[in-house]
Amino acid sequence: MNGLLERTLRTIVSPDDAVAVRTRHLLDAKTKPTGSLGRLEELACRLAAIRGSVPRGPLRPAIVVAAADHGVAARGVSAFPREVTAQMLANFAAGGAAICVLAREADARLVVVDAGVEAAAAIRGVRDETVNRIRGTRDFTTGPAMSSELAVAMIERGIALAHELADDGIEILGLGEMGIANSTAASALVAALLRADPGMVCGPGTGLDAAGIERKIAVVREGLAANGLPRPDAEPVDVLAAVGGLEIAFLVGVILGATGRRLPVLLDGFITGAAALAAARLAPAGVGSMVAASRSPEPGHTLVLDALGLEPLLDLRLRLGEGAGAALALPLAHAAIAILSDMATFEAAGVSERTKATFAVSSDA
Amino acid sequence: MNGLLERTLRTIVSPDDAVAVRTRHLLDAKTKPTGSLGRLEELACRLAAIRGSVPRGPLRPAIVVAAADHGVAARGVSAFPREVTAQMLANFAAGGAAICVLAREADARLVVVDAGVEAAAAIRGVRDETVNRIRGTRDFTTGPAMSSELAVAMIERGIALAHELADDGIEILGLGEMGIANSTAASALVAALLRADPGMVCGPGTGLDAAGIERKIAVVREGLAANGLPRPDAEPVDVLAAVGGLEIAFLVGVILGATGRRLPVLLDGFITGAAALAAARLAPAGVGSMVAASRSPEPGHTLVLDALGLEPLLDLRLRLGEGAGAALALPLAHAAIAILSDMATFEAAGVSERTKATFAVSSDA
Repeated sequence: MNGLLERTLRTIVSPDDAVAVRTRHLLDAKTKPTGSLGRLEELACRLAAIRGSVPRGPLRPAIVVAAADHGVAARGVSAFPREVTAQMLANFAAGGAAICVLAREADARLVVVDAGVEAAAAIRGVRDETVNRIRGTRDFTTGPAMSSELAVAMIERGIALAHELADDGIEILGLGEMGIANSTAASALVAALLRADPGMVCGPGTGLDAAGIERKIAVVREGLAANGLPRPDAEPVDVLAAVGGLEIAFLVGVILGATGRRLPVLLDGFITGAAALAAARLAPAGVGSMVAASRSPEPGHTLVLDALGLEPLLDLRLRLGEGAGAALALPLAHAAIAILSDMATFEAAGVSERTKATFAVSSDA
Repeated sequence: MNGLLERTLRTIVSPDDAVAVRTRHLLDAKTKPTGSLGRLEELACRLAAIRGSVPRGPLRPAIVVAAADHGVAARGVSAFPREVTAQMLANFAAGGAAICVLAREADARLVVVDAGVEAAAAIRGVRDETVNRIRGTRDFTTGPAMSSELAVAMIERGIALAHELADDGIEILGLGEMGIANSTAASALVAALLRADPGMVCGPGTGLDAAGIERKIAVVREGLAANGLPRPDAEPVDVLAAVGGLEIAFLVGVILGATGRRLPVLLDGFITGAAALAAARLAPAGVGSMVAASRSPEPGHTLVLDALGLEPLLDLRLRLGEGAGAALALPLAHAAIAILSDMATFEAAGVSERTKATFAVSSDA
C-alpha cells in the first residue's frame, strides 16, 4: 500500500515533550501559585506540545460533523427511525441544530459532511463526501458493513478534509457525528477492538429503554459473530469495515489527517471515541494529539477513554453527539491559551522577590 | 433590625418552578432527543427559573472579586506572605492576573473590590469598600476576627454593589476572592456552620505541605475554641464575624443582594462556597439562585456543595480562587441560553410527524 492513508500514518508523531516543558516554565512564571489552574494548565501544555510550538494567540477552530446511515438500523436498535439522519443533516445545513448553535457560540467554523446518508438530496452547505454514491452501510449482522476498500476510501476522504482545513488556517479541530443506529456500530467496533463483552459496552444511546438495550446487545453479539470478531490478528481497517460506519471511517481519517498536520483533535462523545480508538490502532503515536472534551454516559465511552488514557474536560451527561461536547470544550482551550499569552509574569507585575521566591518554594511542596 | 440586610432577606424567594417547567417544554420542542443535552438543559431551566422568565438572549455577566487580609495569616497558615494580597490586588487592577484574562475571554465585566487589604494604596480600577478604613481582620485564635456590626456593614456593602450592578444591566454574577490565609478563615467558617471536624475541612489551599495542613487544622481548632464554636444557637452573622473574613462577609452580601434581584450567582471554589453557606443560613430560599461553577480539590468544598445540594459544572482541579472557575463556567451559561433561544423546533425544522412522535415517545422511556 502506498496510498494517502499509508503516507499519512508515516507523518504522525507524538506531541513534542520539550515544548510541553517550555510551556510549563512559561506558566510557572505567571502571577499565580504553581499549577493552581489545574487542568487548564495541563491543557495549555498539551495543546502547545501537539502544535510543536507555544501558541501566541487563540487557535482557529472548526468542527466537523459527519453523518451517515447504518444498515443495522433495520434491526430496531435505535429509538428513532432511519429517516431522522437525513432530516438532521438538513437541520445542520439550515443552522437550527444544537451543534449549529454551539459552534456559533464557540466562534468555530462548522463543516457538515454527508458521509453516506440515505435519501439525502444535495443540500446547500453540506459537503458530499460519499464514495460511489454509497449511502449507508449493510446490516453487519449478515456480513461486513462495508468492504475494506470502501473503509479506506472513506478514511482518505477524511484525511483530505483535514488537510484542506489545515491549509485554510484552521488550527484546532472538534469532531461530531450523526447517524441513526451509529451507537450500535460504535459499540460493536469498541467491543471488537477492546475484546470487551458487548454487555459492558452498549447503553441507551439517545433513548433506548432496558428492553431496547438488551436487543442492541444481542444485535452486537450477532454482528461480531457474523464477522468472526474479535480476532487477535484482525487489521483495524478490516474491523472498521466489518462493524463500523461510513461517518466513523470518515472521522478516523479526519483524526489521522489532523494529527499528521499537528492539529489538536477535540473528541466529542462515544461515537467519536470509537473512531479515535480505531485511529489509535492505526497510529498509536496519534493518541497524544487527542483531547477528550466530554464524558458520555454511554458505558462504552469510559472503556474507550481508559484504553486511550484520556480524561475528559467536561462531564455534563450529554448524549446528543453532533460535536456538542467538543464545542462546549472549545472555550476551555481558548482560555488555556489566553492564560499563556495574556497573563502577567511575576517580573512584569512587579511582585516582590520575596513573594516570587515563596511562590517558587511552594511549587516544590 | 430594619437595615439593608434585613430588608434584603425579605426580598429573597425561591426560583420560579413554573418558569422551569415552561423552559423544559421549550427545550423539548427543540430538534434533539429529550434531555440529550444533559446538564446544559438543567442549567437553562435553572437560569430561567432564577430570573423568573425565559431569557431571550445571553445574560450580561459581571465577576466580582473581593480581596482582604486576615489576622490569622500571622499564624503561618499560608504558603505565601501576607503582602501578596496587596500585590495581587494591584495585579487585578493592572489586568495581568488570571481572572483578568478569564473575564475578558468570557466577555464579563470585572469588578475588583478592596474589602480590607492591608497597605493597599488607592488603586485606579479598584473599588474601596472598606468600612472605617479597617484593613484586615484580627487573628481569630485570640477572639473574634471582627465585630458583628462590622460583619453586617460589610454584608451591606456587598448588597449595595449587587444592586448597583443589577441597576446597570448586569444579569448574572460570578464571584471571586483573594486574601492570603482566607482558606483558613473559610475552613473555620465551614467547620463552625456544618459542625464538621476541622481535620475533614482543611486542605492545602494554594500550596501547603502536609505539615502546613496539620498546622492549619490546629489553628482552626484554636480559633473555634477561642470563639466558643460550634454553638447550636449561634447566629450566622456572629459566626461570620468570629472566624470569617472581610471579603467573605462582602461576598455574602453580594450573594444576598444578587439573589434578591433574581440574578443567578455563579460560585467559584471553596472560599466563595463558604460565603454561600453563610448566605444560605441567612436566607435558605436563596440556595436556588446559586450555581456551582467548579469543584475545588479542597476537601471542605465538597462538604459545602453537599450541604447546599449543588453539583458543580466543572471539575478542573482549580485551586486559585479569584473567580477563575466562575469565569470558565460562564460560556456554559451562555450556551445553555443560546440553545433555548437559537435552536430550531421540530415544527420549524420540518421534521416529520412520525419522527416528532418518536422523539416524544423516547422522552417517556
